Amino acid sequence: MTIEIQKICEAEFLLENMREVLRRTAPDHRFSEEERKEFDKNIKKLDKIVEEMKKDKYTGSNLKYITDKIELRRREEDFINIDPIQSGGRLTLEARKAMIAYGDGYSTCDYCFKPFRLDQIQKPPIHEFVEDLAEFVGMDTARVVRGARNGFQIVSNALLEKGDVALVSSLAHYSLCLAIESVGGIWREIPLNKDRIITGENTRKKIEEVREKTGKLPKLVAVSHFDYMFANEHDVHGIGKTCKEYKIPFLYNGAYTVGVMPVDGKKIGADFVVGSGHKSMASPAPTGILATTDEYTDKIFATTKLEGDLTGRKFGVKETYLLGCTVMGAPLIAMMASFPKVRERVKHWDEELEKARFFISEFTKINGNKVVSEMPRKHTLTKVDTTDSFDKIAKKHKRRGYFLTDELKKRKITGLFPGTTREFKLNTYGLNWNQIRYLADAFKEIAEKYKINVD
Amino acid sequence: MTIEIQKICEAEFLLENMREVLRRTAPDHRFSEEERKEFDKNIKKLDKIVEEMKKDKYTGSNLKYITDKIELRRREEDFINIDPIQSGGRLTLEARKAMIAYGDGYSTCDYCFKPFRLDQIQKPPIHEFVEDLAEFVGMDTARVVRGARNGFQIVSNALLEKGDVALVSSLAHYSLCLAIESVGGIWREIPLNKDRIITGENTRKKIEEVREKTGKLPKLVAVSHFDYMFANEHDVHGIGKTCKEYKIPFLYNGAYTVGVMPVDGKKIGADFVVGSGHKSMASPAPTGILATTDEYTDKIFATTKLEGDLTGRKFGVKETYLLGCTVMGAPLIAMMASFPKVRERVKHWDEELEKARFFISEFTKINGNKVVSEMPRKHTLTKVDTTDSFDKIAKKHKRRGYFLTDELKKRKITGLFPGTTREFKLNTYGLNWNQIRYLADAFKEIAEKYKINVD
Repeated sequence: MTIEIQKICEAEFLLENMREVLRRTAPDHRFSEEERKEFDKNIKKLDKIVEEMKKDKYTGSNLKYITDKIELRRREEDFINIDPIQSGGRLTLEARKAMIAYGDGYSTCDYCFKPFRLDQIQKPPIHEFVEDLAEFVGMDTARVVRGARNGFQIVSNALLEKGDVALVSSLAHYSLCLAIESVGGIWREIPLNKDRIITGENTRKKIEEVREKTGKLPKLVAVSHFDYMFANEHDVHGIGKTCKEYKIPFLYNGAYTVGVMPVDGKKIGADFVVGSGHKSMASPAPTGILATTDEYTDKIFATTKLEGDLTGRKFGVKETYLLGCTVMGAPLIAMMASFPKVRERVKHWDEELEKARFFISEFTKINGNKVVSEMPRKHTLTKVDTTDSFDKIAKKHKRRGYFLTDELKKRKITGLFPGTTREFKLNTYGLNWNQIRYLADAFKEIAEKYKINVD
Repeated sequence: MTIEIQKICEAEFLLENMREVLRRTAPDHRFSEEERKEFDKNIKKLDKIVEEMKKDKYTGSNLKYITDKIELRRREEDFINIDPIQSGGRLTLEARKAMIAYGDGYSTCDYCFKPFRLDQIQKPPIHEFVEDLAEFVGMDTARVVRGARNGFQIVSNALLEKGDVALVSSLAHYSLCLAIESVGGIWREIPLNKDRIITGENTRKKIEEVREKTGKLPKLVAVSHFDYMFANEHDVHGIGKTCKEYKIPFLYNGAYTVGVMPVDGKKIGADFVVGSGHKSMASPAPTGILATTDEYTDKIFATTKLEGDLTGRKFGVKETYLLGCTVMGAPLIAMMASFPKVRERVKHWDEELEKARFFISEFTKINGNKVVSEMPRKHTLTKVDTTDSFDKIAKKHKRRGYFLTDELKKRKITGLFPGTTREFKLNTYGLNWNQIRYLADAFKEIAEKYKINVD
């Protein structure tokens, strides 16, 4: 473990110890003798750490746990992390500061006034943020939801009756299928073409098939722009067009796009845009966004209609399928704190692709290494196949596939599924050029060590 | 603003700046000249703050914002916070440390192996935590959900068909009503008795009324142990008994109990126990728990049944109404980090009541001050009425009801709804005796200042 990060955490924890004393003694902060001692003890320890920092010479640290059984997590500081789902959800510096300041449960609700709804709060500027989000994805209205899957569920809940059919991709993520199933809907799969792409044409065929079999059109089409399996780009424009023709609402699943690349929902022809905060918007879980057009706003964000049979109570502007307020507190504030950088970073998607392609070109110099995803890569997430390279070593190695995990770990690389040497996914999003080169070199080094030819 | 807390935040933010450099330079941390400078600049600033801390003599601080427009939040350090919904969700020290270390989106998922489900993860010990949670509320199985309202929705989704009736309290929180409405159910209100309490007897009457009108029994009864309006204690044991007789499943809403007082779901006769992390378990939003008995586990936590019509894909153990994994990342880890203290603190509920009662007895020495909630208080949340005291002043004061807000703010007390001087709610949970006395004295001081008699 890198000693610096350990010392940084230690210092932050000492400061939190001090903060705790301030909480206990609020508001006048008249310390008892004991509290003074406790406070000063933390200052003293902090001072010692800063002295070490100044000299860039550290004594060891025993800090391993946050509390009983929960280890410190230093994956992003000690390693290059190429986990397929983690890279876009890494917090920005600003988001981490927000987590420190806004951790308490209802921290966003200090200034919640009429009409008492999260998306209407002005301070902190949640209302403005929600409006910015809609614009960000080229739609009319947006809400923060409890993960992309909650977005799928809200749309399914609003549009589907029991037994209704919704079309999804043959590569659809399970959470979309569950969202449809949870409201009693039935999901049917649109076939991939030979390049493993969902097209407008195949969507049309499936729509017709459903019409033929059930006598009814599907009630919803929901497809990922880039799927979670190969991160192939699907023809969302074509699908949007087909959906328009049939007047079937189209849900654009942007779990792997919103927050990393530019997305213009209306231009695509989407009726709903769903994004994931923890997957692609540098935000803590469980966060996501659901955006729609004026046409569907009242349907999706429908307000409550029922009233109390005894009391006559109504709940006014509370949005039924959202269950009122959605993501309060730290996850929301962190999402907001990241947003300026997120808005900026999508403009640099080209550069991310350039790095990903560079890595893949280096990676495939290792003889036997192949790419399973479409080529050239249009996403930083890629599925690769090393059956003819690393897996051959694994077959004879006493650690089996874990030899690769071990070798990568030695080189401070993490995020691949442990023990796997056939097909696996990796994501280079957010790595800088130094890190990309380091990563490529590491794989080549390992190949060479095991006598695999490298071009 | 208390300078100490500002300096603590400043120091933490400097450390986060340094951490950012470590992330950028991972894994070998070979700093460029510029990075070295940046790192050292932060150390230097930190050193200056620590020097000030050592001398307990501070220069000013300009730190007001985390980032563009998002202000620092220091409500818990600068003020005594008696906000009705915030006190039980204040993070513990351990939870705040967890927020620092586990902020990144999928931070809990580093060791997610087969069967790939959040509640099965062993490291960090999520699986153990979920089992502990079930035991904690006296039930057989539990899951972490996205707030109590998500728990209501999961149960409603699993049990209710369109048009089915669910009974709720006449004081039910809107989120429960919306959860029922969202799945097409209809909520009907159980009347309060003259003491504003829901009893088993009134529940029986309402069940019979529904049976008479619709020819069917209600499909669910869902009642809060303590309601959000008065925090009166409702006869959950009696309701549980009635429900058992009719074989109607009973959802115990513990948003105001689970995490602050002992709850034994089975003893109460509950089929489901719902709790709120951000309301009562010292956790960030959006978190909650849903627990049930062996009888209902398979129904509520039903796994997905559908399969792909083209691919034949199934999603195995993923739980349909939960949409698979629920709360990943920082909110979950913070909830886990708080849990040892939460488990301990429920044993000291008597002491919390003692403090609340002391405060109320002092508060009502102010002539005209009344308590709207049941007496003696059985909860730290209380609705009071100051129409005959502070509101009389407000009527003649140029700041109207805001005079009270102003006076409290001057005394570093926050959390009351601004400008209100008739009926309002406050919560003393978690304040220590010093703070309780300070709070009581502050109210009396204000009364005296405005010539209201104090006994």
